Amino acid sequence: MKHFQYHLPTDIERESMATIARELGQMGAVIPEENEAVVKRVIHTTADFEYAKNLVFTPQAVSHALSAMKDRPVIITDTNMALAGINKPALEQVGGKVHCFMADADVAEMARENGTTRATAAIDKAVALYPKAIFACGNAPTALIRLAQLMEEKGVRPSLIIGVPVGFVNVVESKEEILALAEEKGVSAIVARGRKGGSNVAAAICNALLYEAVGRRL
Amino acid sequence: MKHFQYHLPTDIERESMATIARELGQMGAVIPEENEAVVKRVIHTTADFEYAKNLVFTPQAVSHALSAMKDRPVIITDTNMALAGINKPALEQVGGKVHCFMADADVAEMARENGTTRATAAIDKAVALYPKAIFACGNAPTALIRLAQLMEEKGVRPSLIIGVPVGFVNVVESKEEILALAEEKGVSAIVARGRKGGSNVAAAICNALLYEAVGRRL
Repeated sequence: MKHFQYHLPTDIERESMATIARELGQMGAVIPEENEAVVKRVIHTTADFEYAKNLVFTPQAVSHALSAMKDRPVIITDTNMALAGINKPALEQVGGKVHCFMADADVAEMARENGTTRATAAIDKAVALYPKAIFACGNAPTALIRLAQLMEEKGVRPSLIIGVPVGFVNVVESKEEILALAEEKGVSAIVARGRKGGSNVAAAICNALLYEAVGRRL
Repeated sequence: MKHFQYHLPTDIERESMATIARELGQMGAVIPEENEAVVKRVIHTTADFEYAKNLVFTPQAVSHALSAMKDRPVIITDTNMALAGINKPALEQVGGKVHCFMADADVAEMARENGTTRATAAIDKAVALYPKAIFACGNAPTALIRLAQLMEEKGVRPSLIIGVPVGFVNVVESKEEILALAEEKGVSAIVARGRKGGSNVAAAICNALLYEAVGRRL
């Protein structure tokens, strides 16, 4: 078999980020400096440079997000996969917590009673407990749709909305909706326009922010 | 806010799969029938149609994989994220188990002693316990490189290798290497050529196979 040169994980990450920066330059991508860490980490996670144009940010979303991430944040995810992907040592360093209520028995019960998806019921539970949480949605458009309803009808104002569900039904529309509403209500949001996204993208955005919050250097 | 039409999750999945099939047709993608469920589920997970050409299969990989998946499979993942993404009810239905050894204390210790990555040490642990496992690697090229070494030097023959790490350093090469070696040794492999892949892709491939194994119908 061929011989591979072994590298330290941090060296690999540094080299990967340099490759990403170089290729973004070659593409002529213009990314505001404050958004760079998020965009580069999503590309690092997906090897998909389309995120250089798909990712959109409400004004000062990253600086608001960093304030939230530094102040004992509560992150709510819509999958256990996104929860698993969030860097726990960094989260611990900022005194943060992460919850996913999707598999909870009371959420299943609530969804059945109200005839909604479990994602909708999980958002209801999360908002009741942590109305100012960081909501990281990488899977369920119904989670974003419910969050939009609660913002509009109940005055809910999350610290940050990471709106990156992936898919083919209601996904594009739910992301445009939450983005417009976030801008209208002055809520910070980071959204992956179009069909693409996912639990890995939601986790990558959280991690990019957490790494900046704790001042992690490669 | 706009009104969204609510759908049952299975309806959404059926509609999504129909959209994917239609667009694959429009692209002129030619996918062998036995590979279709895997390719479509990866696109469903990523909304990225590049996987129609990136995913490569050793001969009869899917039928061999299905035999393995039906027979109390042990799946080894290289991230807790991939582990979290694997459908547990389906896995239970086939009497299967999934393990990720990456965060184990003895793996960290072994990596330190031998001067390797944790992914390398985790493969050593997994192969010692379950040499015929299904190895689902969505993250660490060093996991694939170690697996290739053990196949070549120790005669290890996994039931299936899912080789879909994502990234920019050693990733493309490690996937080409495992693919060539799998073909040479008659081991079944499903590999995402190029830089793309990820824990979500690894989990999606496992789930596509599990759903076929249990005869799940949408």
